[in-house]
Amino acid sequence: MSLSFLGHLRVIESSAFIAAPLAGLTLAQFGADVIRVDLIGGGIDYGRLPVMPSGRSLYWTALNKEKRSIAVDLRKPEGREIVRALVTAGGDDAGILLTNIVTPWLAHASLAEHRSDLISCTIEGNPDGSTAVDYTVNCATGYPSITGAGSPAAPVNHVLPAWDIACALQAAFSIVAAVERRRRTGQGAELRLALSDVAFSMLSHLGITGEAELQQQDRPAIGNYIYGAFGRDFGTADGQRVIVAAISSGQWTALVKACEVHTQMAVLEQTLRLDFSREGDRYQAREAIAEVIDAWCKSRTFTQVRQAFDANRVCWGLYRTTRDLLENDSRVGVTNPIWERVLTPGIGSHLSAATPVRAGNEDRTAVAPAPLLGQHTDEILQQVLGLDSPAIGRLHDAGVVAGPERDPSMPGFRQG
Amino acid sequence: MSLSFLGHLRVIESSAFIAAPLAGLTLAQFGADVIRVDLIGGGIDYGRLPVMPSGRSLYWTALNKEKRSIAVDLRKPEGREIVRALVTAGGDDAGILLTNIVTPWLAHASLAEHRSDLISCTIEGNPDGSTAVDYTVNCATGYPSITGAGSPAAPVNHVLPAWDIACALQAAFSIVAAVERRRRTGQGAELRLALSDVAFSMLSHLGITGEAELQQQDRPAIGNYIYGAFGRDFGTADGQRVIVAAISSGQWTALVKACEVHTQMAVLEQTLRLDFSREGDRYQAREAIAEVIDAWCKSRTFTQVRQAFDANRVCWGLYRTTRDLLENDSRVGVTNPIWERVLTPGIGSHLSAATPVRAGNEDRTAVAPAPLLGQHTDEILQQVLGLDSPAIGRLHDAGVVAGPERDPSMPGFRQG
Repeated sequence: MSLSFLGHLRVIESSAFIAAPLAGLTLAQFGADVIRVDLIGGGIDYGRLPVMPSGRSLYWTALNKEKRSIAVDLRKPEGREIVRALVTAGGDDAGILLTNIVTPWLAHASLAEHRSDLISCTIEGNPDGSTAVDYTVNCATGYPSITGAGSPAAPVNHVLPAWDIACALQAAFSIVAAVERRRRTGQGAELRLALSDVAFSMLSHLGITGEAELQQQDRPAIGNYIYGAFGRDFGTADGQRVIVAAISSGQWTALVKACEVHTQMAVLEQTLRLDFSREGDRYQAREAIAEVIDAWCKSRTFTQVRQAFDANRVCWGLYRTTRDLLENDSRVGVTNPIWERVLTPGIGSHLSAATPVRAGNEDRTAVAPAPLLGQHTDEILQQVLGLDSPAIGRLHDAGVVAGPERDPSMPGFRQG
Repeated sequence: MSLSFLGHLRVIESSAFIAAPLAGLTLAQFGADVIRVDLIGGGIDYGRLPVMPSGRSLYWTALNKEKRSIAVDLRKPEGREIVRALVTAGGDDAGILLTNIVTPWLAHASLAEHRSDLISCTIEGNPDGSTAVDYTVNCATGYPSITGAGSPAAPVNHVLPAWDIACALQAAFSIVAAVERRRRTGQGAELRLALSDVAFSMLSHLGITGEAELQQQDRPAIGNYIYGAFGRDFGTADGQRVIVAAISSGQWTALVKACEVHTQMAVLEQTLRLDFSREGDRYQAREAIAEVIDAWCKSRTFTQVRQAFDANRVCWGLYRTTRDLLENDSRVGVTNPIWERVLTPGIGSHLSAATPVRAGNEDRTAVAPAPLLGQHTDEILQQVLGLDSPAIGRLHDAGVVAGPERDPSMPGFRQG
């Protein structure tokens, strides 16, 4: 769980795909007891690619680490009652539901009859409740038309599910804000969050909709150039690729110094009647500037480029593949305290990140691997609902709940 | 501010660029009183593109709406003391600092001498404190090599500052989690958050690092195809472009039905010995499937495509430019309660988003436009520090603080 800020908060998560599980993970990484309600045998995303030979999904286990799992048959009324009881169970730190699955038996109003201070957070696609996923929202933002060599006729999708991530973190924030309010006032909250609203509101916060409305222009497609200042990718003589960012005037001065191109820049400024100490002027002259920097980079090896950049505190970065990042970048790996080695059943031993937040010298606990489906069924029924062993046994016998032995990727787990 | 969950929380923000201001905006949109400490005349990003003819930045005003501003000369020791006093002022709801500007006089330990339960959140580039921006972090994730037609030799940068956004929301979450803990335990918190840690930890949460490490493979570059299931962009006969996502089996069934391609798909399944009810099999056969869908789409007008998709509940979206989104998508505009018209000085009247979170029938207050630099200098000095008019006048006369008349984009504001 890494940090313990959210103490004994208990969150019931009924979710699939990215946004809601990532919201739950964010809460769990700050110490919340996040209990996933899993379908017996796994839900819609339990086997999503990439998967290991065991059938266990690297995707699902990455998003659902640090949580507990209860496996329930949600087609059975008794199964649904168990989930409703988990959500509405008493305690100042309980009564929190996180879901992206809209269903009448988990409706806020109906649950609030049992616990009036309930906090529920429901993630939807569109505000009218219709389905949308990251890709079908992103297409409407305008970004694919200006990414890479993209155009309205040949848009380029992002690969990172950026809107899911934003939605997840906004949901986690909203839940904790509601908890904070409940602690002060006793009031519950019914929170709803649409992926499309998250995306389009972000366009407002970044000034993109303002630009489109007031200047009647869409942001131009400028490939890998950084908008509004100077920056772009460049190749080195030995085939590496770096990006340079000269956004602040200090970063610009550093770049000019590192490449020793004061004279060329002075000539350019004179020719173009611009002042490169102004970031807008650097942006205007970006192609002419890039030509000079490009010539400098491509006549030097990566080692030479790196030395000159670092000696002058240029703001730059090396393009890497993910494997290269893992193998060669010291920011990823166990020497960085946010990374740990974790042993996940059905997956093996692998590097895993805890919360990226560092909190002074406060204790961090080890990252817990993703649970098997139903790994905590019995302990949750006992701890949260106070059921005794015979009652729990009857639920198993009736097929209402299951333990980890029914996880399809772990057929032998806890057998006999 | 839109929602009032965070009641009278007071946050002092000393920030520039995207991540920290967006974190402050997120807090403000939930009701926190976020006070920006601005430089007299504006900080490093006050004039960032795009700008209006007045010189006011659409970027800065978008990120800093819903906040108050005090303009202070931070080179003067007296100016710094004012900021330190604002941060450490008494009250259960105060004592919160949000910053991306690392400077000794705002160091947590030094401030905590005056207020031991201080909560500070510092956003950095890299965990060692060195500079990094969204672009110089993104290059190391591996994503640019697999975006669009990207490759390690010709990477494609994202245009959306996705890591800044994730960092902002993680920071807002962390601050509220620390406030919640402080309310329970009285304990403060020193939070640090590096942009690179936010990005790379997200690779872990999405299973990307696990895949690279355990399967010794980087995610393949697949252009606009959706990884792991079926989805891609398609053109219509009249030149529109849509994306289709068939991730769940319901979405797949809907697509096959909408396009009436049951027979072709059955033949493909037989030929390729695959079962398209499995998302992994759809992914494997993506190119063959896409050929069929492509032929269907490009022989129909957009209206025909839309009708068939909607009638069958296909998960799809239309590619738009941002202007097209504003003009033609009903999800953006004042009929959606998260959008409002706002009048920002120096900018004009424009659409603006509040928080995307909907909270039942709870009251939403109007979005407040970005402040002028120092617009609230006097009221903040009076309310928070208890200074009287003569004392405030002396600070103005000594050039330690300033009001909005010194905002360079508003030379005539409040003159005389």
